[in-house]
Amino acid sequence: MNYQEAIKIFRTMHDKLHAIHHALGVVHYDAATVAPKASAEGRGKTMGIMTEMSYNIQTAPEVKEAVEWLLSNKDQLTPAEYREVTEFNKSNEFISSIPMQEYVDYTILINEAEDVWHRAKNESDADAFLPYLEKIFETNKKFALYYKPDQKPYDTMLSMYEKGLTMEQADKFFAVLRSKIVPLLEKCMSVPQVRCDFLSRTAAIPTQRIFSDYLMEVLTINRDNCGIGETEHPFTTNFNKKDVRITTHYHEDALVSSMYSVIHEGGHAMYELHSGDDLEGTFLSGGVSMGIHESQSRFFENIIGRSRGFTALIFPKCQELFPDVFGDVTAEEFYKAVNKAEPSLIRTEADELTYALHVLVRYEIEKAVISGDLAVKDIPTAWNNKYKEYLGVDVPDHGHGFLQDSHWSGGSIGYFPSYALGSAYGAQMLAKMKETIDVDKCIATGDLAPITAWLEEKIWRHGCMYDPGQLLEMAVGAPFDPAYFTDYLEAKFKEIYNV
Amino acid sequence: MNYQEAIKIFRTMHDKLHAIHHALGVVHYDAATVAPKASAEGRGKTMGIMTEMSYNIQTAPEVKEAVEWLLSNKDQLTPAEYREVTEFNKSNEFISSIPMQEYVDYTILINEAEDVWHRAKNESDADAFLPYLEKIFETNKKFALYYKPDQKPYDTMLSMYEKGLTMEQADKFFAVLRSKIVPLLEKCMSVPQVRCDFLSRTAAIPTQRIFSDYLMEVLTINRDNCGIGETEHPFTTNFNKKDVRITTHYHEDALVSSMYSVIHEGGHAMYELHSGDDLEGTFLSGGVSMGIHESQSRFFENIIGRSRGFTALIFPKCQELFPDVFGDVTAEEFYKAVNKAEPSLIRTEADELTYALHVLVRYEIEKAVISGDLAVKDIPTAWNNKYKEYLGVDVPDHGHGFLQDSHWSGGSIGYFPSYALGSAYGAQMLAKMKETIDVDKCIATGDLAPITAWLEEKIWRHGCMYDPGQLLEMAVGAPFDPAYFTDYLEAKFKEIYNV
Repeated sequence: MNYQEAIKIFRTMHDKLHAIHHALGVVHYDAATVAPKASAEGRGKTMGIMTEMSYNIQTAPEVKEAVEWLLSNKDQLTPAEYREVTEFNKSNEFISSIPMQEYVDYTILINEAEDVWHRAKNESDADAFLPYLEKIFETNKKFALYYKPDQKPYDTMLSMYEKGLTMEQADKFFAVLRSKIVPLLEKCMSVPQVRCDFLSRTAAIPTQRIFSDYLMEVLTINRDNCGIGETEHPFTTNFNKKDVRITTHYHEDALVSSMYSVIHEGGHAMYELHSGDDLEGTFLSGGVSMGIHESQSRFFENIIGRSRGFTALIFPKCQELFPDVFGDVTAEEFYKAVNKAEPSLIRTEADELTYALHVLVRYEIEKAVISGDLAVKDIPTAWNNKYKEYLGVDVPDHGHGFLQDSHWSGGSIGYFPSYALGSAYGAQMLAKMKETIDVDKCIATGDLAPITAWLEEKIWRHGCMYDPGQLLEMAVGAPFDPAYFTDYLEAKFKEIYNV
Repeated sequence: MNYQEAIKIFRTMHDKLHAIHHALGVVHYDAATVAPKASAEGRGKTMGIMTEMSYNIQTAPEVKEAVEWLLSNKDQLTPAEYREVTEFNKSNEFISSIPMQEYVDYTILINEAEDVWHRAKNESDADAFLPYLEKIFETNKKFALYYKPDQKPYDTMLSMYEKGLTMEQADKFFAVLRSKIVPLLEKCMSVPQVRCDFLSRTAAIPTQRIFSDYLMEVLTINRDNCGIGETEHPFTTNFNKKDVRITTHYHEDALVSSMYSVIHEGGHAMYELHSGDDLEGTFLSGGVSMGIHESQSRFFENIIGRSRGFTALIFPKCQELFPDVFGDVTAEEFYKAVNKAEPSLIRTEADELTYALHVLVRYEIEKAVISGDLAVKDIPTAWNNKYKEYLGVDVPDHGHGFLQDSHWSGGSIGYFPSYALGSAYGAQMLAKMKETIDVDKCIATGDLAPITAWLEEKIWRHGCMYDPGQLLEMAVGAPFDPAYFTDYLEAKFKEIYNV
């Protein structure tokens, strides 16, 4: 074998895998947005067969041989090629460690589970979903042990969403957040509360759709390459850098729910849409990790979207589109309402301050289940107890409890901590960005170009070229430090609540 | 090789092909309904690679060997298995006759062409689309000659949509239609015209969407297995019998356009939704030919949907949903308006009487281009001349002329005649059905069950088990005879126009 032969095998394999994943991605997006209700069975079969094809392509002996050749001839590869082959090899080691039939069965399980979860959530039917959840936890743990038999399985799982993250680090990180957030929240709760009655006023859904288009425009997202779908749980998916889809959900009595979903998913979309052109068509295109991805989505949602400047910027449009909602409201009241800090039930609707506590509940439950300290059947009770303990709220039904998120039904165990990490990464990026850019002024004037240029230069264009920790350090010139986030929260909420 | 081995290879091949076609079908549906505008490039690449995979699966040496074994051991196969292998072998001979790269390139061409066509149609830009159309005609002709070098290529193409159909038969068929329709149309045009002013009144699109859901309910289409999308040109696609999608288009000033699209595509959907359970997961599931498919869609659209009974049945709902459209209209006026016979520009909007003349234009153009008598660049002129000659109308722009249909951009040459054939098949089925069912009463009372049960029993459940001609003959107990259709048209339109 020589370089030309090896790289050709590698590239052809990439293209085939990419095609299958593209098609499966569209099938999944279609399922979540528009597919008829009773269509899961045939889709599951198709997804199973195509997953098997992708498994076979990825683990073919000639691919293995080509990868080995490339890895042992590093000097003939560009740095990007070497990185690509190395990263592929790691993910391949994971896949290859799983017996094919188990991998395929898992795909089919997930397709079914998502279907069951949708119904279970709507009907608050814990019993319908728990058997699936049990299998999903079990399988994830088993896969983690296939891959790294000598490592704690939850560490392996955390690291798959945020490379290098361990329970030890996550424990410390959450301890810092908890120690700062809980007293700050108590302070905010002890003073007169901000007004937010108008947020539950009726806003017609067709008008909310128009508002979404407006927000995408303000965020400078190119709609020729980015669609908006409607799903139970908002998400972003990308098929390539010119075809990204975000989704949102509309509720007549919760206008800002969709508003912040669009802005959050818009942040994910911007990251994917601005992956480096030189990386397109390789394994290095697109976002590098869930933590960095969430840093972008939560930068858009909170640092930009929940800033005083942004809420004032869009307020005239809000009043124009929704006169019945905002007729007797000031821009300042709007700003404070979308930043109302209060214990609540739903993670995706949570304010910036309490958000990390929602993540903490999930992190602790996942950790306990995987370590064997908590049975899956006891998750509902554990969930409700932790919400009472950390957030002081009573969970009225499982649809507003452990069934609220789509992650577990989609097989993502170990994902949640990346949301909190992302928020913290974003605050550190903001601090660095402010050294050279008048961020508040950019937002207030609606000129996001300097901000997006910074993010594109420092984060987006690099795709998966660097590990998340390394990428952050390159961007901010220092190692990760959660103090930027707690400082940011303290400054923001002390000012809003005057505490 | 033995039976078990051979059938296993065959079945596995089927499942893989089906999975790829399912996924590609969803990708195509997504592209037509919701994909962002500038996403065609990556999709084309993916479709090309997956088409190549499907080509390789279908033409693998072990598949060839298994098929040969099965065909030469007919006695060990059930009749359904033998039919399945025989039919697969024929389509495989077609695919195998085309060099793989040409087949893949053609898929990519079609993906691009559909994109270009959308824009060209909207902008009436003939020059943008003609180079693609030329390549599409050329490639189709080349493929027909690869497959059947000794047969006239347009005969080969006709037969791919309606097995056994030849230019000789189609010429005769159209001659009969023309000889009956043209004088009847002249008579209808010579008397005072029916009222149809209200059909162009404004009907809000969100309400039209509700109306679509209502129509699907009246047609007894199970929405758990059938979605409605929105596209430029309405179509139906099916991924399996539990996942069928129809599309429609909404225009504020053309309520019945969407109404009859929904009913027409609903007929296609019913056929697919009721394919025999025993055929699911085989090559025999789903509609057998375009002619039979159109017989079902046009049975729903015209024989049911444009009947006096049906228009009266749904009229109260029409008045309820669209008071501004139907406030001063009677049910009888509605019936006559949707049956107004008049020369027009757009095939899909054409009345039942003139419809076949629209098809004739396309048939003659395709025939002339494939035979070499007409250059593709001259299609626009030929089109406009024929519309003047057969329908007496001046084509104002190409968007309302040769760019109006999606078929050519999708690579379907030889498809159009099946629309007219389908109408004629449907009329013959109606005559037979009336021997045992009071069809008019069923429609008028909204009890479609006896009608759909007849169609399911005679047509739908058989999937691809029989050739179209054979299936029709089994259903109606006689060979195909276009006189049923011309008799039906004469009776209906003489009554409406009192001529």
